[in-house]
Amino acid sequence: MEVRWRGFKRLTPVGEALKSFIASGRFGPVGVEAVRWDECLGRILAEDVVSPVDVPAFNRAAMDGYAVRSEDTFGAKLDKPRKLRLVGRVEMGEKPGFEVGPGEAAEISTGAMLPDGADAVLIVEHASVVGGSILVYQPVSPWRNVNRAGSDVRSGEVVLRRGQFLRPQDIGLLCLIGKDSVKVYVKPKVGILSVGSELVEPFSQSPAGLGRVVDIDRPMVRCLVERCGGDAQDWGIVGDEAELVAERLKEGMKGAHMAITTGGVSVGKSDITIEALRLLGAKILVHGVAIRPGSPVALSIYEGKPVVSLPGPPAACLIAFHLFARPVIRRLAGFRTEFLPCVRARLAARVPSRLGNRSHVRVRLYRKDGQFWAEPLQVTGSGILSTMTRSQGFVVVPEDREGLEEGEQVTVYLYTPHELVGGG
Amino acid sequence: MEVRWRGFKRLTPVGEALKSFIASGRFGPVGVEAVRWDECLGRILAEDVVSPVDVPAFNRAAMDGYAVRSEDTFGAKLDKPRKLRLVGRVEMGEKPGFEVGPGEAAEISTGAMLPDGADAVLIVEHASVVGGSILVYQPVSPWRNVNRAGSDVRSGEVVLRRGQFLRPQDIGLLCLIGKDSVKVYVKPKVGILSVGSELVEPFSQSPAGLGRVVDIDRPMVRCLVERCGGDAQDWGIVGDEAELVAERLKEGMKGAHMAITTGGVSVGKSDITIEALRLLGAKILVHGVAIRPGSPVALSIYEGKPVVSLPGPPAACLIAFHLFARPVIRRLAGFRTEFLPCVRARLAARVPSRLGNRSHVRVRLYRKDGQFWAEPLQVTGSGILSTMTRSQGFVVVPEDREGLEEGEQVTVYLYTPHELVGGG
Repeated sequence: MEVRWRGFKRLTPVGEALKSFIASGRFGPVGVEAVRWDECLGRILAEDVVSPVDVPAFNRAAMDGYAVRSEDTFGAKLDKPRKLRLVGRVEMGEKPGFEVGPGEAAEISTGAMLPDGADAVLIVEHASVVGGSILVYQPVSPWRNVNRAGSDVRSGEVVLRRGQFLRPQDIGLLCLIGKDSVKVYVKPKVGILSVGSELVEPFSQSPAGLGRVVDIDRPMVRCLVERCGGDAQDWGIVGDEAELVAERLKEGMKGAHMAITTGGVSVGKSDITIEALRLLGAKILVHGVAIRPGSPVALSIYEGKPVVSLPGPPAACLIAFHLFARPVIRRLAGFRTEFLPCVRARLAARVPSRLGNRSHVRVRLYRKDGQFWAEPLQVTGSGILSTMTRSQGFVVVPEDREGLEEGEQVTVYLYTPHELVGGG
Repeated sequence: MEVRWRGFKRLTPVGEALKSFIASGRFGPVGVEAVRWDECLGRILAEDVVSPVDVPAFNRAAMDGYAVRSEDTFGAKLDKPRKLRLVGRVEMGEKPGFEVGPGEAAEISTGAMLPDGADAVLIVEHASVVGGSILVYQPVSPWRNVNRAGSDVRSGEVVLRRGQFLRPQDIGLLCLIGKDSVKVYVKPKVGILSVGSELVEPFSQSPAGLGRVVDIDRPMVRCLVERCGGDAQDWGIVGDEAELVAERLKEGMKGAHMAITTGGVSVGKSDITIEALRLLGAKILVHGVAIRPGSPVALSIYEGKPVVSLPGPPAACLIAFHLFARPVIRRLAGFRTEFLPCVRARLAARVPSRLGNRSHVRVRLYRKDGQFWAEPLQVTGSGILSTMTRSQGFVVVPEDREGLEEGEQVTVYLYTPHELVGGG
């Protein structure tokens, strides 16, 4: 459908388009909020977390046995045991009221506090009790069978860093050091507006007439925004009237950090969205990108906030979202860099492309002969949604290639990390 | 900490342990429920979805131009145009009231229904209007600039398959074909119980005394269960009394599909959980696995439902969760196979291991010289949580290796697909 970009004076290469867009704005985190420890999973930390305590808080026996001074056990053998006098017993949860002096030992339970003087725990199997003493049959090295104070976490240590994604173990660490809330980045509010007089709401009561089109871009983009760490706002559908589009955008942007529009970005008759952006005085940095599908993309700044205008045809909309909206949302959400999960695969058939264009070829992945194969579904057909639902990801044909060869090793960018279910 | 598995008669290899556990039970989906289209993102489909309609529903103009019979344009040239008589005009949303016969053409808008007889759209640039006719300057091939009926989705076609993970584009497809709810697998209810008299709730009002331990396993496991597609139930903490543990398990299992316990799985004095499972008459299939960390794992079946008993020390608990609890939860949730996101990296230092044991070495990933490097953090220390919080994943040393060499290429299994933030 090269038609779609008929009329553009120049198509900007993808890399240049994204770079100039990102350079133009301050696309950093939109704010910081405190969140309880049990609600921060998956959020991005907005502060360095410093532990106020040692973990463990004291030298702790890792085994049941005898607290000893390790040097007292050196040279001990089965046929030449060393004798140590028992001076007490320590249970978990109590502070020992005595020291272990030279030639002395104390019974100790796993998890109990090591008495002063002792620097190791001798396991029961390596000693025997004789009256008020023990016979030691094996030497034990210093700090053996002891979890030393601060060996897990030291007081004053930075344990979690600003910008990191919070995982289950990080929640555990917050519990461990007693920090019950942390500062995380606020989720950016992202408004989503569909433009087009032909559009109707999905499952709307009034049946879609001939030539009416169900607006599937908005629900898809809403899901994607949430996936990227944004807070999606639904701004509905506006028909082909630039003034109305401008009004809705202006109103919506008062309470949002970013806008995504779909449709109305072609050249000529159907550039309603572009016209609306001009009416608003938005700075249109890019209009038309050298990609397939998805070339009629516009990237603008309105009142310092990013506006990403995606093409209406669903496959083009999704690919353009991945390329241009995702990296911006993630920056606003506090993620530091981009990462799309990917796998290496062998291309099952030749893929043609056009020099100067970057093509995004949807592929179906399967396993054969112990490796992944990528079957190209379609290069063109920006309106064909089923190429997206039948594929697990896409392969990129760079601008300087006229295509990719059958059998070539390629990187497949996966839509989600769950794509290999059934094959991984 | 080889101590932890002192006393096991035999340690079962990981693969054998998991295999026998999975073979013993019917670890399939626990149920099916209907969910609305806008609430099924990320769920697993429990039915094949068949489209009741063609998409597009009719042959649709992909461009503004003229609906023609393609054969009428064959041979047309700039200096030898072909003349076609204009017989009407079709706008989007209307049904044309005429046919296009031989030697005829009709004006048509993008998205409008192609009149009968026509099989292509000639773009305006390739024709000019002269009175009631057009002069055609270029031939157009059949179905050019037409989105044919059923070219995206055919009526009767299976468009989404049972067992697949629902992504944004799949939600879009449901809207497109007008299916407003789908059957998905029910999330399995997974109870989580901590065993140990030394344990206290995180952030509990009563300060933890010396030797008391904050129960961080339960909040971590709760997060992990939700991540795997389960519905976590908190069964709290039970002290070192087998009868009480048995009672809590019995009561909880009435409303759950699976149980996960942490702690009380060693051999001898501190095997409260094992004792409780015996009291309940549970079938203990495996107790003690040849891994580090995490060897004191027990895998049981109670009333036909899986019980995974994890070791208490947090690093061991997390690794054992990944190996034994995750695959079972995902099976109950309807996922078909396992996939942990992974990357290839070069090992930054030698890692020792013990023959016959599978070791899970936590590694910190970084980029240098255009590739990933994995710095081993620690092999032992099952209680050291910070090796989990400072690492992005783990490397496996198989049973038949005494270690991995510095510089060796290894696979790093990532905890989450977000681990490469900062490096990817």
